Amino acid sequence: MVEGGPGEEFVSGISGHPFGPIQFTGERHSLSQVRLLAPMLPSKVVAIGKNYAEHAREMGGEVPGEPLMFIKPSTSVIGPQEAVAYPTGLSERVDFEGELAVVIGRLCREVPVERAHEVIFGYTCANDVTARDLQKKDVQFTRAKGFDTFCPLGPWIQTELDPADLGITTTVNGEVRQSSRTSKLMYDIPTLIAHVSAVMTLIPGDVILTGTPEGVGPLQIGDEVSVAIEGIGTLTNRVVSRD
Amino acid sequence: MVEGGPGEEFVSGISGHPFGPIQFTGERHSLSQVRLLAPMLPSKVVAIGKNYAEHAREMGGEVPGEPLMFIKPSTSVIGPQEAVAYPTGLSERVDFEGELAVVIGRLCREVPVERAHEVIFGYTCANDVTARDLQKKDVQFTRAKGFDTFCPLGPWIQTELDPADLGITTTVNGEVRQSSRTSKLMYDIPTLIAHVSAVMTLIPGDVILTGTPEGVGPLQIGDEVSVAIEGIGTLTNRVVSRD
Repeated sequence: MVEGGPGEEFVSGISGHPFGPIQFTGERHSLSQVRLLAPMLPSKVVAIGKNYAEHAREMGGEVPGEPLMFIKPSTSVIGPQEAVAYPTGLSERVDFEGELAVVIGRLCREVPVERAHEVIFGYTCANDVTARDLQKKDVQFTRAKGFDTFCPLGPWIQTELDPADLGITTTVNGEVRQSSRTSKLMYDIPTLIAHVSAVMTLIPGDVILTGTPEGVGPLQIGDEVSVAIEGIGTLTNRVVSRD
Repeated sequence: MVEGGPGEEFVSGISGHPFGPIQFTGERHSLSQVRLLAPMLPSKVVAIGKNYAEHAREMGGEVPGEPLMFIKPSTSVIGPQEAVAYPTGLSERVDFEGELAVVIGRLCREVPVERAHEVIFGYTCANDVTARDLQKKDVQFTRAKGFDTFCPLGPWIQTELDPADLGITTTVNGEVRQSSRTSKLMYDIPTLIAHVSAVMTLIPGDVILTGTPEGVGPLQIGDEVSVAIEGIGTLTNRVVSRD
């Protein structure tokens, strides 16, 4: 568990998994002294396409008539400060996509919109890294978005948060590239949970990515990319060549 | 482990997982006395689209210039004799797609074609059940192919088999609907393993579905659908309403 004010955060160890009542181990460290891993090991990451109108437009389309889902495999997940591996030789255009991620806390299926809040464990930042050239070529998103390291998540799970209107900003080497608010989501989080869970059972630790706002653009090897969400924190990753 | 001739098969219990040297528990039962579960718990099922030319044609397209991949979530997997749940109210056209499935036995990535045989644990039958109306509507295959129970696998994993030219037959209520041979795969199994593992790490138990031949068609509630592959066995499932 991470607590404390900016620059003075400290991390308290807990035992077991975090989806039920938690127990502290008594260990405490300054946040600057620890390396955080991805805050969960999802069985699946279900992502939603074109869920901000401005991003749908920049991609040359409209917001779909229903939430459009695709899956990123568990092998694509990395944590904060881990490296995104650029698939040199397979793609020549790899984009960042900053997103709000919802972490599921309960085994559930066919969740009604009005009970969606019961299955949410918390929220974190995500980067839905995408090989844009392969996405266009394949039409199916699976390869373009499924590479190892293409799903940075973190830096932690914020469990006390109203996600309705949070600032979300993506920066590359300190320069702002995406800046929007979660209030602009076309399909809100309860709608997404109802829609996804009508198809597939969700398991504690599974993640729903809620879509990216406008401003997506390319990453280069050596870049440092950060997704910051108000009330959560900042997820930072460096891009390296995978060779 | 399942051994013995037709009608006289027996099942011997093994301890631990089957991906290394196995140990027998000493338990033995007649196959007719046991209920088989799905033969693995995959972290992901990577499926290949339009990999038989005749099926690509019946879908109104051509074989893609590269293998086309998509993912079925682990929550879609069921075993032999388990029920396929028809998502009444969400789809009005649910199709069978009989396929040869490859089971991965080793943690691997970027596997060269010539070493693909080293990472194969064995082969089983699969039914890539598809809500055809949602597949057309969404373009992305994830929802259409991702429903709970839409990935029957089994009846067991055949570890000693040359998969190059096996008869594959799908029957509905005893009537033959698909009948082809794996020699007609456009991209062969080593090519598929190389292609998929160039994108994502494969984990023991992960499954690659190699695509379906021509003859796909609809299932109705109450139907019994079987996928039989020469040298492996027969995977049979019944269709029920999920309500």
